[in-house]
Amino acid sequence: MESGGKLWGGRFGDRRIVDQVMERFNSSISYDKRLCYVDILGSKAYAAGLFKAGLVDQVECADICNALAAIEDEWRNETFVIHPSDEDIHSANERRLKELIGTTGGKLHTGRSRNDQVATDLRLWLRQEIDQSMDKFLVQIIQVLIERAQDEMDILLPGYTHLQRAQPIRWSHYLCSYAWSLWSDVERLIQLRDRVNVMPLGSGALAGSPFSIDRLYLSDLLGFDNITPNSLLAVGDRDFVVEFLSWASILSSHLGRLAQDLTGSSLMPQKRNPDGLELIRAKAGRIFGHMAGFSMILKGLPSTYNKDLQEDKEALFDVVDNLYDVLQVAAGILSTLKVDKERTLGALSSDMLATDLAYHLVRKGVAFREAHTIVGKAVSMAEDQKKEISELSLQDLQTISSAFDSSVKSIWNYENSVEQYQVAGGTSRRAIQKQIDDLKTLLELRKVPCSNTTL
Amino acid sequence: MESGGKLWGGRFGDRRIVDQVMERFNSSISYDKRLCYVDILGSKAYAAGLFKAGLVDQVECADICNALAAIEDEWRNETFVIHPSDEDIHSANERRLKELIGTTGGKLHTGRSRNDQVATDLRLWLRQEIDQSMDKFLVQIIQVLIERAQDEMDILLPGYTHLQRAQPIRWSHYLCSYAWSLWSDVERLIQLRDRVNVMPLGSGALAGSPFSIDRLYLSDLLGFDNITPNSLLAVGDRDFVVEFLSWASILSSHLGRLAQDLTGSSLMPQKRNPDGLELIRAKAGRIFGHMAGFSMILKGLPSTYNKDLQEDKEALFDVVDNLYDVLQVAAGILSTLKVDKERTLGALSSDMLATDLAYHLVRKGVAFREAHTIVGKAVSMAEDQKKEISELSLQDLQTISSAFDSSVKSIWNYENSVEQYQVAGGTSRRAIQKQIDDLKTLLELRKVPCSNTTL
Amino acid sequence: MESGGKLWGGRFGDRRIVDQVMERFNSSISYDKRLCYVDILGSKAYAAGLFKAGLVDQVECADICNALAAIEDEWRNETFVIHPSDEDIHSANERRLKELIGTTGGKLHTGRSRNDQVATDLRLWLRQEIDQSMDKFLVQIIQVLIERAQDEMDILLPGYTHLQRAQPIRWSHYLCSYAWSLWSDVERLIQLRDRVNVMPLGSGALAGSPFSIDRLYLSDLLGFDNITPNSLLAVGDRDFVVEFLSWASILSSHLGRLAQDLTGSSLMPQKRNPDGLELIRAKAGRIFGHMAGFSMILKGLPSTYNKDLQEDKEALFDVVDNLYDVLQVAAGILSTLKVDKERTLGALSSDMLATDLAYHLVRKGVAFREAHTIVGKAVSMAEDQKKEISELSLQDLQTISSAFDSSVKSIWNYENSVEQYQVAGGTSRRAIQKQIDDLKTLLELRKVPCSNTTL
Amino acid sequence: MESGGKLWGGRFGDRRIVDQVMERFNSSISYDKRLCYVDILGSKAYAAGLFKAGLVDQVECADICNALAAIEDEWRNETFVIHPSDEDIHSANERRLKELIGTTGGKLHTGRSRNDQVATDLRLWLRQEIDQSMDKFLVQIIQVLIERAQDEMDILLPGYTHLQRAQPIRWSHYLCSYAWSLWSDVERLIQLRDRVNVMPLGSGALAGSPFSIDRLYLSDLLGFDNITPNSLLAVGDRDFVVEFLSWASILSSHLGRLAQDLTGSSLMPQKRNPDGLELIRAKAGRIFGHMAGFSMILKGLPSTYNKDLQEDKEALFDVVDNLYDVLQVAAGILSTLKVDKERTLGALSSDMLATDLAYHLVRKGVAFREAHTIVGKAVSMAEDQKKEISELSLQDLQTISSAFDSSVKSIWNYENSVEQYQVAGGTSRRAIQKQIDDLKTLLELRKVPCSNTTL
Repeated sequence: MESGGKLWGGRFGDRRIVDQVMERFNSSISYDKRLCYVDILGSKAYAAGLFKAGLVDQVECADICNALAAIEDEWRNETFVIHPSDEDIHSANERRLKELIGTTGGKLHTGRSRNDQVATDLRLWLRQEIDQSMDKFLVQIIQVLIERAQDEMDILLPGYTHLQRAQPIRWSHYLCSYAWSLWSDVERLIQLRDRVNVMPLGSGALAGSPFSIDRLYLSDLLGFDNITPNSLLAVGDRDFVVEFLSWASILSSHLGRLAQDLTGSSLMPQKRNPDGLELIRAKAGRIFGHMAGFSMILKGLPSTYNKDLQEDKEALFDVVDNLYDVLQVAAGILSTLKVDKERTLGALSSDMLATDLAYHLVRKGVAFREAHTIVGKAVSMAEDQKKEISELSLQDLQTISSAFDSSVKSIWNYENSVEQYQVAGGTSRRAIQKQIDDLKTLLELRKVPCSNTTL
Repeated sequence: MESGGKLWGGRFGDRRIVDQVMERFNSSISYDKRLCYVDILGSKAYAAGLFKAGLVDQVECADICNALAAIEDEWRNETFVIHPSDEDIHSANERRLKELIGTTGGKLHTGRSRNDQVATDLRLWLRQEIDQSMDKFLVQIIQVLIERAQDEMDILLPGYTHLQRAQPIRWSHYLCSYAWSLWSDVERLIQLRDRVNVMPLGSGALAGSPFSIDRLYLSDLLGFDNITPNSLLAVGDRDFVVEFLSWASILSSHLGRLAQDLTGSSLMPQKRNPDGLELIRAKAGRIFGHMAGFSMILKGLPSTYNKDLQEDKEALFDVVDNLYDVLQVAAGILSTLKVDKERTLGALSSDMLATDLAYHLVRKGVAFREAHTIVGKAVSMAEDQKKEISELSLQDLQTISSAFDSSVKSIWNYENSVEQYQVAGGTSRRAIQKQIDDLKTLLELRKVPCSNTTL
Repeated sequence: MESGGKLWGGRFGDRRIVDQVMERFNSSISYDKRLCYVDILGSKAYAAGLFKAGLVDQVECADICNALAAIEDEWRNETFVIHPSDEDIHSANERRLKELIGTTGGKLHTGRSRNDQVATDLRLWLRQEIDQSMDKFLVQIIQVLIERAQDEMDILLPGYTHLQRAQPIRWSHYLCSYAWSLWSDVERLIQLRDRVNVMPLGSGALAGSPFSIDRLYLSDLLGFDNITPNSLLAVGDRDFVVEFLSWASILSSHLGRLAQDLTGSSLMPQKRNPDGLELIRAKAGRIFGHMAGFSMILKGLPSTYNKDLQEDKEALFDVVDNLYDVLQVAAGILSTLKVDKERTLGALSSDMLATDLAYHLVRKGVAFREAHTIVGKAVSMAEDQKKEISELSLQDLQTISSAFDSSVKSIWNYENSVEQYQVAGGTSRRAIQKQIDDLKTLLELRKVPCSNTTL
Repeated sequence: MESGGKLWGGRFGDRRIVDQVMERFNSSISYDKRLCYVDILGSKAYAAGLFKAGLVDQVECADICNALAAIEDEWRNETFVIHPSDEDIHSANERRLKELIGTTGGKLHTGRSRNDQVATDLRLWLRQEIDQSMDKFLVQIIQVLIERAQDEMDILLPGYTHLQRAQPIRWSHYLCSYAWSLWSDVERLIQLRDRVNVMPLGSGALAGSPFSIDRLYLSDLLGFDNITPNSLLAVGDRDFVVEFLSWASILSSHLGRLAQDLTGSSLMPQKRNPDGLELIRAKAGRIFGHMAGFSMILKGLPSTYNKDLQEDKEALFDVVDNLYDVLQVAAGILSTLKVDKERTLGALSSDMLATDLAYHLVRKGVAFREAHTIVGKAVSMAEDQKKEISELSLQDLQTISSAFDSSVKSIWNYENSVEQYQVAGGTSRRAIQKQIDDLKTLLELRKVPCSNTTL
């Protein structure tokens, strides 16, 4: 016996209110309508698959595909009318299909479930975003960095560690360091795309399809590289979302650190309004938050499909949108900011050459750690005399170590300093040119992501 | 000399595109228009403050206030037209004010900056939400729990540890356990509200106001409990947001755990569609994600205002909206779910009384750990004989321990079992009644949050 | 029929290896031995409770308490020997108790379960840390800030927004801003301590105790403010941990932002090694990570006790330890750093007085927004003439606005500038003195947390 | 002029205390000593590099390498004595080297900095863990899953969606679904290893090395696949840590979901103690927490090396250790758990064949959505008659739809049911065999990670 008809709580005595609130709570059409085109794309392919399996005849298949094309036009022309009862984009498109072609429309769902349909749609959507925009925006910003690096090789400025000015470096060296970070993002994106571009369609509710649907055929039609290997996994697997969000979090942290450098720097003396940079920095937090939130949603979730997974979309959409903004604004800032060469040069001072002085002694046969000690003494002496270290006389230096001779003068030249760093990855002109050339080659030879659907 | 006029990157050669993208990136009007009323409220108070300080005269003050009231009507009637150049709600309202009353409008901003204005608006908004809805929804669900607990005291079901059925408990005991969790949320909410309801207005851009603005007067007008004590802190402090988000994360985890219990349970045999519960469970992740994201945004941020803080609003709005949904849906589910008494009773079995059997022996003078061992043997014996433990004969029991006598029969009664737990917080009828009464008293005596603005 | 005796996987064919790995995995003694004293404390109280309930006699009670005192000494003298089979601190102490007094020791666990025992121990431990150290370290750093603020009121430096130098402020104003943030941490700590200091003991495994244990008596003995109201909740509730971790995350973000300010600043020209500051900044991430991790552990967890909760301790211990370090190192840095007054003064420039100039015009009757425009023109003019704005001639200024007269000279004085900000919370001497006095009063009047156990 | 010698705060008046606390705070030797062997390995290679570059002679090189080998032995034999002044493993090894061979030891650091040294060590360490253990443990658990899947193909049980029993599936299908998730972890691990196994050595403090060190030679000696392309990036880049932690978080969420399934299931009726499963579930949170914490540490960090990065090690070590435990315990549980075939079969009921009944009608030409409706009516009818749906008479069924005929009997067979799902990824025997075979092939053909150092 169930505990009677009694309802508890004042307002909630009226079940209609409960139902109303719950309906709104369940509904996802307000944001998942963004999947309208990929949902239609997936349905077209599925209609073809049903025809191949003999589950609809040629006329039915054509009717379905034509009606789907008509619905697609409605979305494109913004004439599609969403009904209050359309809970999500899939039921909206399905309802409309039946309005247009009646019961034939109902056949489209033979052996397909919401579970495999929604997983397919989201993968199609994300793949398109990667192929059509994400990769492009990311490559664009790398190109801006490389071009500037090539053009402004002459500009020197202080390199920092611990937020302390440490050594002179080339501005181009700095630009390339971010180009390399972003290149690793390209690399990761191409690798994860392979895990996005796998088709769940044909997995049914969880156990697969009991009809002889040719999943490889569907996969070819939709431009997928592969099909998911296990139906239980396919309907509940959102690793591709988490992996993309983790990727986005790492990428946005690169741009956020770049923004932090530029915001706090004296690179752009004329800048009045670092709002753009500050927002770029902030987006790293926002994007991380979506990743963290969705990771928590998945934690401890039972296998296969659970409604919790509905939360994947808003997180993913917001991250993609924000990345587009961040990548474009960062590219815009990097392509327009001006570097005041005199100011950056003026930020250099001879104490940043202390390491060079130590190496000078090493080349004369002094052990490194001893050289280090000698230079420490020279720095102190300069401080005591309220001089730059470069202004110490040779005599003074020789009171510290007899290893000093007149060749020490050659040290006090910033261009000479950076040119010593010929090692691979170093800050000399040649080493940077190699980086630029390598990056260009990598960009050219990379596998450009590209969706080929035949529908 | 700046590095010339050259621009890098194909598309970004055109500065107009850069400017366009950046403008959209900076703009917050699409979401912060939600602050339209509190922004006007704050402005009305500030106009009164300027008048008190002699910075506007009576006519000017009246003009400003009337125009603000007119703008408020426009928002209410949805006739306010947002211009493309309105970057945020504050500039939109300000622009409109000037359209209505010209230069007098400009005086409103004497000694006020965006920094203290936006901080004030957001605190006003959050206080209103707490006072007008959050507290109510939260109390409502506690009341549903208490009412059911009162009405359904007779229902017994298994208590679980480690997802294993352990001991019989009262259903009301379970309901009260969540009522207490949610009560702690009420308690925390009231405490954090005190830290929300502090007025930053009059802090200027960062150093305070150079005019003799009476901040306590403003604070009274706006119903704030207090004024922020340090202007540098006031403009950049978003602790009230983080604290609220952390609070929301804890609250939503309570509801998420409740949802998990109910989703996986056999409490509601008639439920066909646990979507609502699954979404409640998921929202705990979403809300945590916002907290995590905004916490990261604040990490390492320099003191005072930075544009990064603009990200506070979307996180806060989404959390508040989702909490409203979650609280109402949870209340709806809890007020309508039916418990099948026979089924819950059927879920009990005599092995859950093993602990009671041990205590029975303890009362007869056996040391607890020894009693534990004896009962272990009885459980094994029952398994061997493929019986319920209650079905073992007294003779059999006495082969294990001579402490058993005929009084052992009294143990095999679930109602008797739960009635033993008379200790404070226990599962006996009296102990639960005490919980219900205490909760009612706490709800009645609690400080109901309430905004009193005199504008 | 069970699927036979077959074991899968090479190495795991040997169950002994499985058992070994699992044993180590389950064991927590390596870190929870830190609870040795509070575990004994709780046991002493429970022995007294059993005596009061007539479940042990006076001799037994004395034997237990004496043996517990002996074990406590062993821990203190580091002579306690942990056995391989001691899975956790509770079983280690219990095992030792039985070695010392045999079966009487077994009676100690009558009606007590690991679930309520471990929850009690952890609350006792955290309360002691709050009372004995956390509060003190936190107050100490506030006192350092206040003392410096009092002593160095004369030092002026630039206030920043958006990492741009904006206006002159007093160094003391800056110091107070952090004192206020940390004061809010004190306030929150005192509030959350009330939720920590609630006793779960007597909740049994989940349903309460079936014996007439006087929980209020136990609570008094152990210095708890209150007892947990519901046994189901009590054994699985770790809100006090999450709330503490969230608190710690907010506190550490305050110190991290302070560290960020100082790391990047020119405040400490002599600093050679900002390692301490950088680590303080980093700890904000580490502590947040523990909070995030433990929040995720709780997500979707079934009610009552689950072994997952064992993860609470390492997170909590690491956060407490790191906070002690961070608070002390921050206090150390703040108490020893030297401010180069000339350098901070030199960092000021007259363009930071642009706002003052605008207010000067406002006081002469110009509307604020118009004044803003005029000042903008003056800034441009100064740039064109490659002058400081303060070096513009009165004639030049008058070409921009006739509102300028000779009184404009008074603006170009930094001390005058800051003294204008007399408003509550402003940067004038008087306004800061008020802050210092208020903070001192708050510290004096605050409820100092203090554990009083009578054992 | 600096603000005098005054110190603020009582306790912190004594600088020695400040220094003591800070020293401890900075010190990392307690945990980074774990890098002792890779630190020595890196040093041996660097000695060879210095010899090749003519910076040390053959005798010096041999002296250094022999001394390093001796130090290695000390670590191995646990005779290495850590001095109080050894801040980290690098300075400990260096100090010892100088004790053994005096000033020659000092030459080892020519052109090498702590920044590139520590980055190199950590990458070497992580690569070794991946190659020697992580990959193996991961593959092992997949093999357990595959073997069981092969052996227990006959076991049927209910597949769930929304925690509701939905359709019969093969137990092997379930096992394979996790094998595939874990395979994707293998795939990702191999990809990210390529980004771990890149050598920063030779990047100096930030600008590279000013000596003609052959980095490719060093890289070959140490078994790196590549060298870092930019020295600025190399010293501050911890993407390889974040990427690994993100990978670990995804992997641990797979195992956590598996644990959740098993914890809550009736698969293992004999299980008494699901502690291991609950801890596995919890570790997903702990590991996520480390990832979240370290991600936050990196947020907004300035380029190149900052001391904040020191936090990478404890997070990484704890994650690796916990993953080893989790992978082994999960493998142990999976290889020893027993499935009660009768019980799992008993958990099936004919209402789970409702979908099959619908498909049966579809094959007879009924449109899917109509078939769905018909089956809904049959379910209701069975409920009304308090029967299983399989117990409805043909006559009864025909009152609902004339499409039913005597062939409907064939539906009520679970083995028949699962065998319908022949589609790729489905739950039929053939489809699962294909999965097992594919997984075996993938494991065999995969690129087994393997470090080859020639030192």
